[in-house]
Amino acid sequence: MKLFTSVNDVTDIKALAAEALQLKKDPYAHQHLGKNKTLGLVFLNPSLRTRMSTQKAALNLGMNVMVLNVDKEGWALELRDNVVMNGTTVEHIREAAAVMGQYVDIIGVRSFPGLKDREEDYTEVVFNKFVEFCGVPLVSLESATRHPLQSLADLVSIEELKTRERPKVVLTWAPHIKPLPQAVPNSFAEWMCKADVDFTITHPAGYELSTDFTQGATITHNQDEALADADFIYVKNWSAYEPYGKVLPGNEEWMLTNDRLKITNNAKVMHCLPVRRNLELSAEVLDGPNSIVVHEAGNRVWAAQAVLKQMLEAL
Amino acid sequence: MKLFTSVNDVTDIKALAAEALQLKKDPYAHQHLGKNKTLGLVFLNPSLRTRMSTQKAALNLGMNVMVLNVDKEGWALELRDNVVMNGTTVEHIREAAAVMGQYVDIIGVRSFPGLKDREEDYTEVVFNKFVEFCGVPLVSLESATRHPLQSLADLVSIEELKTRERPKVVLTWAPHIKPLPQAVPNSFAEWMCKADVDFTITHPAGYELSTDFTQGATITHNQDEALADADFIYVKNWSAYEPYGKVLPGNEEWMLTNDRLKITNNAKVMHCLPVRRNLELSAEVLDGPNSIVVHEAGNRVWAAQAVLKQMLEAL
Amino acid sequence: MKLFTSVNDVTDIKALAAEALQLKKDPYAHQHLGKNKTLGLVFLNPSLRTRMSTQKAALNLGMNVMVLNVDKEGWALELRDNVVMNGTTVEHIREAAAVMGQYVDIIGVRSFPGLKDREEDYTEVVFNKFVEFCGVPLVSLESATRHPLQSLADLVSIEELKTRERPKVVLTWAPHIKPLPQAVPNSFAEWMCKADVDFTITHPAGYELSTDFTQGATITHNQDEALADADFIYVKNWSAYEPYGKVLPGNEEWMLTNDRLKITNNAKVMHCLPVRRNLELSAEVLDGPNSIVVHEAGNRVWAAQAVLKQMLEAL
Repeated sequence: MKLFTSVNDVTDIKALAAEALQLKKDPYAHQHLGKNKTLGLVFLNPSLRTRMSTQKAALNLGMNVMVLNVDKEGWALELRDNVVMNGTTVEHIREAAAVMGQYVDIIGVRSFPGLKDREEDYTEVVFNKFVEFCGVPLVSLESATRHPLQSLADLVSIEELKTRERPKVVLTWAPHIKPLPQAVPNSFAEWMCKADVDFTITHPAGYELSTDFTQGATITHNQDEALADADFIYVKNWSAYEPYGKVLPGNEEWMLTNDRLKITNNAKVMHCLPVRRNLELSAEVLDGPNSIVVHEAGNRVWAAQAVLKQMLEAL
Repeated sequence: MKLFTSVNDVTDIKALAAEALQLKKDPYAHQHLGKNKTLGLVFLNPSLRTRMSTQKAALNLGMNVMVLNVDKEGWALELRDNVVMNGTTVEHIREAAAVMGQYVDIIGVRSFPGLKDREEDYTEVVFNKFVEFCGVPLVSLESATRHPLQSLADLVSIEELKTRERPKVVLTWAPHIKPLPQAVPNSFAEWMCKADVDFTITHPAGYELSTDFTQGATITHNQDEALADADFIYVKNWSAYEPYGKVLPGNEEWMLTNDRLKITNNAKVMHCLPVRRNLELSAEVLDGPNSIVVHEAGNRVWAAQAVLKQMLEAL
Repeated sequence: MKLFTSVNDVTDIKALAAEALQLKKDPYAHQHLGKNKTLGLVFLNPSLRTRMSTQKAALNLGMNVMVLNVDKEGWALELRDNVVMNGTTVEHIREAAAVMGQYVDIIGVRSFPGLKDREEDYTEVVFNKFVEFCGVPLVSLESATRHPLQSLADLVSIEELKTRERPKVVLTWAPHIKPLPQAVPNSFAEWMCKADVDFTITHPAGYELSTDFTQGATITHNQDEALADADFIYVKNWSAYEPYGKVLPGNEEWMLTNDRLKITNNAKVMHCLPVRRNLELSAEVLDGPNSIVVHEAGNRVWAAQAVLKQMLEAL
């Protein structure tokens, strides 16, 4: 594997999830692969789980890790082409990406969307500059429109904890006060559409995701209908795709509660985290026996390790 | 050892200090203990000595280290329970602590007091959330009311450099312009009260520490009386316990000078650092032959290493 | 080697460059040297290339690395002597440097000039405090007036890519909107004056560098004359030395373009980076076949590794 930016970079997602679960059983068996290899983790935005789990995955594989909070520790990056850099940006992403590629064997990059210009975000203008110029295998630590390491960890969690062969998985929109990216729901949707699951998306009218990510999913505005008999509920807020990046008024009743869990098949509740308690998801669910959010976060290590292992094998 | 948050977590402080001094002589003898083990260092506040010395201690033991400046690199943490998170905080400490525990074998946490609400600070509301939810052995990198790695390093320094069996150790208040936590003096006091030393605390009226930490100490408002014949002087500012977190006017004359050292038994001068020169402690003392502040800071490595070693042995 | 702060710390720059190129061929041959040795990288200012390349160099040598962004992660440093620290600074550089030296075997320090007080900058007041107090071998990661790791990497690049025995190397001033330090041009000049090259400096009137760094160089205000038949062009902005730290009006026509490259000997174009596109250097040159800026940045690893290797050998 040379690139891990979406489900389309993976030939067999089931096999990759199985490899992650195998690594969970035997984390240190492949340390020869990472010897004298360096992973660079480049953050243009905050990160806790991705930062720590990907580091841990690399260490398990015997790699060295260098972390760069590029705008804080390096230089303010210019992302646009064909400009005279006489403003506040100090280094162009073309040079920054190319230079970082000189120092590492594999690079991971996190870059959030601006949520202002849909065309720019959805063509992954910033992220693709890294892909184009860094010159080394690249793993997405979340881009404007996708978060594939999260989605792989989610698939791993479902494969690990499912109690029937083809579980019902529901992605449900949740309330929030700020506009959040569509990266996590987009990505989860496109992974689930390729997985052996019965996949439903539910959200209020106005929160339709781009259809590029939801081919094959059942989509409904009726949350109760969606939750009925669900095995896994993936809770997540996202801002509107149209009008782009907006929070629509209302919909506070979409927050998942214990009461609503009753109509499910004792569903396991997932969330990528961070989660705002009692706004996106009730404390009673988070602290209750159905929540697997911490377990799911733990699986981030094995997802990242499976991807890095395949990249190291292809170096 | 599963927890290192105060002197009460240690069964034999003299033996622990002796182990630290033994590690100082032979730092790399236990690298098998740390193989494939990861220490996570989580900072909610600045740190220089604790950050570097604890990293070094872990590296000496063969561990991997991941450092997280959580509010800067991760997400703004919510510390209160039972709130609707519709403000500026993005992640609750319950999830953050639990998730971090997924990625590390031992966690270290630094979290300063707010100095506004004594009840909240002295019940260690924030810190105890980490203890409760992280799920792995935890070492305090300084909490609201204690700094036990510092106190252990202080004990190590006294054991190493004492010239009589039972030295006289004096904790003296020093002036400052800002309200500082009581964590270092509290912690130093409770360690010294259990150590083989003759222990005196001196401070201006109004700066009484909580008596929970000072049982067995001689306490006086007369600095000269306290310093007489002292072998070690521990210089430190703290804000008032009552009224909580306040700086009382005056008391600038409490700054230690060379002149005052004359009444001591050629005392060694200690400070946890950072120290404000010529405000808390005179430059002439800091730069003079009696200061052991840098040596003391160096001993932070061996204190941390002794604690981490015992934690690794108990994993 | 105990100190690497300028060309004057090196006995044979040609041999050091040759060692760097040898390490480039066989990066991992000396990992026994770094075993249980720790490099501390201390940044008072931003860094991308220096930060990553020096880390990588140390890892190649088997060292551990600890990175400290001292003002952000540690404490605001006081740099002046003989003051009462009753302002915003929390720790004096004397203690900070001495303490950091307790935790590492070799220290690297970056500290930019203030560009306000030439005397202070050019006597390296801040930097020399680190040298004086840290107590361990020190490598400059760029100081107020020099950037020797960059200059060594530049020499390495020239030695590696030159097509005639004694190439013509030209340092040309480039436009900028903000006052930049003279550290890179000073340092490049003093290295080139000792190298086997024909060295010319060209800049607009008013941008004369301190003659302490340019002994032996040909200096001209005529850029075309300087560029004629050049093999290497080192592009760099700097602010005036007199009036100190000022940007003089005009001189935008000094930006290097493809058209101007025609008068050279198909010159390779160098820059230390970061570079402001279309302000300091045209995009057409940066993206064209003559630019070696990324290759040059890659050589930062081998320059740092050669220096660290010599320091480890002398421990």
